Amino acid sequence: MNEKRLENIISNMKNHDIDQLIITSPDSIFYLLNEWIHPGERMLALYINSDGFTKLFNNKLFPLSDIGTAVCYYDDTEDPIKKLASVIDETKIMGIDKNWPSSFLIKLLNETNNLKVVDSSIVVDETRMIKDKEEIKLMKKASEINDKVMQKALDLVKKGLTEQEIGKKLADVYAEYNTPNFSFDPLICFGENAAEPHHSSDDTKLNENECIIIDIGGITNNYSSDMTRSFFHGTPSKEYKKIYNLVLKANLKAIEKVKPGVKFSDIDNAARDIIKDGGYGEYFIHRTGHNIGLCAHEYPDVSSVNDMEVKEGMVFSIEPGIYIPGKYGVRIEDLVIVTKDGCEVINNYPKELKTF
Amino acid sequence: MNEKRLENIISNMKNHDIDQLIITSPDSIFYLLNEWIHPGERMLALYINSDGFTKLFNNKLFPLSDIGTAVCYYDDTEDPIKKLASVIDETKIMGIDKNWPSSFLIKLLNETNNLKVVDSSIVVDETRMIKDKEEIKLMKKASEINDKVMQKALDLVKKGLTEQEIGKKLADVYAEYNTPNFSFDPLICFGENAAEPHHSSDDTKLNENECIIIDIGGITNNYSSDMTRSFFHGTPSKEYKKIYNLVLKANLKAIEKVKPGVKFSDIDNAARDIIKDGGYGEYFIHRTGHNIGLCAHEYPDVSSVNDMEVKEGMVFSIEPGIYIPGKYGVRIEDLVIVTKDGCEVINNYPKELKTF
Repeated sequence: MNEKRLENIISNMKNHDIDQLIITSPDSIFYLLNEWIHPGERMLALYINSDGFTKLFNNKLFPLSDIGTAVCYYDDTEDPIKKLASVIDETKIMGIDKNWPSSFLIKLLNETNNLKVVDSSIVVDETRMIKDKEEIKLMKKASEINDKVMQKALDLVKKGLTEQEIGKKLADVYAEYNTPNFSFDPLICFGENAAEPHHSSDDTKLNENECIIIDIGGITNNYSSDMTRSFFHGTPSKEYKKIYNLVLKANLKAIEKVKPGVKFSDIDNAARDIIKDGGYGEYFIHRTGHNIGLCAHEYPDVSSVNDMEVKEGMVFSIEPGIYIPGKYGVRIEDLVIVTKDGCEVINNYPKELKTF
Repeated sequence: MNEKRLENIISNMKNHDIDQLIITSPDSIFYLLNEWIHPGERMLALYINSDGFTKLFNNKLFPLSDIGTAVCYYDDTEDPIKKLASVIDETKIMGIDKNWPSSFLIKLLNETNNLKVVDSSIVVDETRMIKDKEEIKLMKKASEINDKVMQKALDLVKKGLTEQEIGKKLADVYAEYNTPNFSFDPLICFGENAAEPHHSSDDTKLNENECIIIDIGGITNNYSSDMTRSFFHGTPSKEYKKIYNLVLKANLKAIEKVKPGVKFSDIDNAARDIIKDGGYGEYFIHRTGHNIGLCAHEYPDVSSVNDMEVKEGMVFSIEPGIYIPGKYGVRIEDLVIVTKDGCEVINNYPKELKTF
C-alpha cells in the first residue's frame, strides 16, 4: 500500500463527505497497491474507510505477496459480495467506483438494508490528477522515449509503408525501448485522412504533396505518453503553411498560459482564440487537451467548459488542431507538467514544419 | 432490428417475469441491431418492453442509419439517464445488463422512485446461446479459416521464431483471410510453458525435444473461432505420448457425448473420466469447454457443476488438457455445433500427434 497516496485519498474522502468507498478499477488499485490485478469477470474491490481501515476483496486465482493491507480471498464457490457487505457500515453513504459492473452493485444492494450509494470516483480521480515525484519521473521518461519513437515513425513514413503497416511496426519500435504496449492505437494519417481527428490507420499510402499526422504514445513503466506532430511530403500550399503556423502558435500560446491558478477553460481559449483570429475557428473541432498518467485519458480535460483551476503536479496534453475536410489536417501536441509557477514541456521533438 | 431475435428475447423475458430491461453491451446490441456501437464512456442502452416497445438511447457522436427501432439521440450537454427514465415503468421490475457501469445505475436509481432493479443478463445470454442459421453459417466459416491458420502457425514454429514473434505474425496471417482481429491473444507455448494453461506468449524459443501448444482464434464477420492443437519437436517420451493419447481420447469421448438433452456436466465428466482413469485426473485443471459466438467466451460453460441440458443450435468448445508442471502440456480443442441428434465438429485440422 502506498501510504502517502492512501492518505491523500482519505483526506479527499473527507472533502466529499464520504466515509467509505470501494475502488475497483485495476489502474486505481495499481495506483495504491503497485500490483496489477486483471480480474476479468470476477469481483475485485478495495474497501477504504476514512478511519484508515482498508481491505482488498480478491479471487484466489490472483494471489498476491504482502501488499500492506488486509486481503479477503474468495474462491469461485463463494459469494464475494457477502464478504464485502460484512465490512460495510450500512448506516453511512457508500461510495462506488464508476465502472463497477451493475451486476455486483445490484447484488450489494440486495445484500444490504437500504444502503445509500453514490458514485465516488471523483475522490480517486482528483487524487490521481496530482502526480507525485515518482510519477513525474516516470512520465518524463515515457515522453523521452516517445520523442525517439516519433523520429523512427517519420523514418517509416519516408520508406513508403501504409498507415497501418507503420502502426504495426511501431509496436516493435516501442518494444526496443522497454515499452511493450501502446497507450492507444497509433494514429498515422496521410493526406485527407488527416482531416479526421480520429481516423483509424488503414491501407492508405502517402502521395506526393500530401500532409502527415502522427499521433502516438506508449506505456513505459505503467505510465502513458502521447504526442502529435504534423509533417508534409512535397511542397506545402500557402494555406497549409498558414494553418501549420496557426496551430503551432496556438500550441505555444496555450503552453505559455499554463500555471497554477489558471482555469483549464482559459488554456483552451488561449489556443482557440489564436485559431479563431486566424479565421479557422470552425475547423478546430475538439477540446485542447486531456490529463494523462496511468491511463492515456484521465480526469479532467482542457476544454472550454472546464472552469477548474490548474494545480502544480498535473500532467496534461496541449493539442490544438485544424482540419480542412477533403484536404488536410494539422495537430501539434505536447504533454506539460504544471510546476510551481508555470509548466515544463516534456516533449522535445522539434515543432517547426519539416517537409521531405 | 432483427425481429426474430427480438421476439426470442421478449419471449424469454416472459419466462423470467421481466417486463422491461435494458441491453447495454455492444455485442448484444449488435446481435439485435446489426450495428457495432462502441460508446466509450458515454451511455448506450437499448430499452425493451415485453409489449414490443423498443428504444435505443445513443449519443449523437454515433449516428445510425435506419435500424428499425426508435432512437433517442442525446448530446454531451444532455442527461441521457433522464431520457431513459422517462420510458421506464417505475411500478415494474427493471432488468439491467450485467456490465452496465455503476455510475449510470446510481443515476437511474436517483432519477426514479424506489425502482426495483435486477440483473437481467440471463434473458439475453440464454437467447444468444442458441445460434440461428445465419450465425451457424458464420461460425463454420470462421473455424474453416482457423483450420488454415493453424497450419501456418505450425509452419512459423518450424521456422524457429519465439512464442511472441509467432503471435504477432499471426495477426497478418488472419488478416489475409478477412479476419482483422484475434478472438483472443494467441497462446503459443513451448516446452514447460505449455504446462500453464494461460501462459502468455513470451520470448521463449523452442528447443529440441520440447512440446508445443497452439491455441488460437480469429474474428471473421463478427464471429469467433477457437481451436487448440498440440505438437512435439523431436522425439516424444513415452509419458508424453501417453498423455497425448489420453487427451485425444477424452476429446473424442466428450464430442461423442454431445446431443440435445445431455447435461453439460455429463460432457465434462465424459472427458474427465477418461483422464482420471488414465491416472492424470489431478492434471486436468480446468473445465472442458465454453460456449462461443460473437464473443470468444459466452454463456454457459461445459463444466462439472453445470447441469443445464444441451440444446440444438448451441456452439461450444471441447478442450480437455493435461498439464505436468515443469515438463509439458497437451490440450486438444474443437468447436462443436449441437445438431438435432448429435453434433457437428467444425474444426477439421488433424488431431493425431504430429512430430517434426
